[in-house]
Amino acid sequence: MAVHIALEELGVAYELEAVPIAQGATQQQAYLSINPKGRVPALRLPGETSVLTELPAILTYLARQHPAAGLLPVNDAAGEARCHEWLAWLVGWIHAIGYGEIWRPARFTGIEANHDEIRANGKQVVLDAYAKIEAALADGREWAVPGSYTIVDPFLLVLYAWGMRIGIDMRANYLAWSGHMQRSLARPAVQRVLQREGIALAV
Amino acid sequence: MAVHIALEELGVAYELEAVPIAQGATQQQAYLSINPKGRVPALRLPGETSVLTELPAILTYLARQHPAAGLLPVNDAAGEARCHEWLAWLVGWIHAIGYGEIWRPARFTGIEANHDEIRANGKQVVLDAYAKIEAALADGREWAVPGSYTIVDPFLLVLYAWGMRIGIDMRANYLAWSGHMQRSLARPAVQRVLQREGIALAV
Repeated sequence: MAVHIALEELGVAYELEAVPIAQGATQQQAYLSINPKGRVPALRLPGETSVLTELPAILTYLARQHPAAGLLPVNDAAGEARCHEWLAWLVGWIHAIGYGEIWRPARFTGIEANHDEIRANGKQVVLDAYAKIEAALADGREWAVPGSYTIVDPFLLVLYAWGMRIGIDMRANYLAWSGHMQRSLARPAVQRVLQREGIALAV
Repeated sequence: MAVHIALEELGVAYELEAVPIAQGATQQQAYLSINPKGRVPALRLPGETSVLTELPAILTYLARQHPAAGLLPVNDAAGEARCHEWLAWLVGWIHAIGYGEIWRPARFTGIEANHDEIRANGKQVVLDAYAKIEAALADGREWAVPGSYTIVDPFLLVLYAWGMRIGIDMRANYLAWSGHMQRSLARPAVQRVLQREGIALAV
């Protein structure tokens, strides 16, 4: 969804291929022949035989290809660095370890009897990190990197939706982040993506 | 060490502050007041009150600040994207989850009795990923992203050294990666860093 939003924000032409993870599609040969890592997202690049993988790389590539849209503040060295810092932490810590433990405990241990405990640990990783996200956004900034909507913000919206999905009362617990979510929902690109993906973020 | 190598490759002025992780320094107040995440590396940016964290962000920032050194192929969109792809995977998967489980099992489970099993899983994550690194490097390329030495290569050297540290016979198992290591060791910047950090990568 984050890449989908970025593509809509950039207004570029693209073809979308939904991969139903819950039905195991990422682990089937048809998809593995496209992305041997068996993960989404993956982006087909013009002239390249292998797809581009890893969310931070795909978002950065798209923003760098279309600099006028400002999704990466390339004329503000510190702001650009903060985008990469946010993404590395959101993707490499909260998603990979927090939600990885919650939704994919088998990645972390081969012993199924321990999965519930792994899930509980992942939930705590998420809660600790979400408190930090709220604290960062609570200083009055409009977007993750103050000054402009960047490639970080679509993924913050995804993490907000995931919080709802695992039963966190996002609205009650994260006031500043809920404001960020509302501002995101006001963007036409975001609205188009939510509608197309059939996702409702109840207001 | 990866950031240290990048700084030497760029030839920029910097001050180095070693943080003895094994002695718990990253979890003590003196360091937490600098980087609340309690992790290394952290880079003090000119004019910024908070340090820049996350290895991919720091390496990207340094390369973007000094484009002439070519550590990020900014005039080759696909090559630049591949740098970010490598780093996200090496840092967010192999380091965070593989070595995280091996060296920091408490991050993944609160139950100490399960730590050995977590460590074993981390070792398998590392071995599976190392086979993929070897396969990627075995196509005859000189560096991770064909065509130039980039910000990816210093971290590949770190991962090679970590493999030795956890008892993998790197030389016997990874021929192409061992060639990459030898080419890295031939670089004056790498030699200066290894000497200053007191690290021997036996040839």
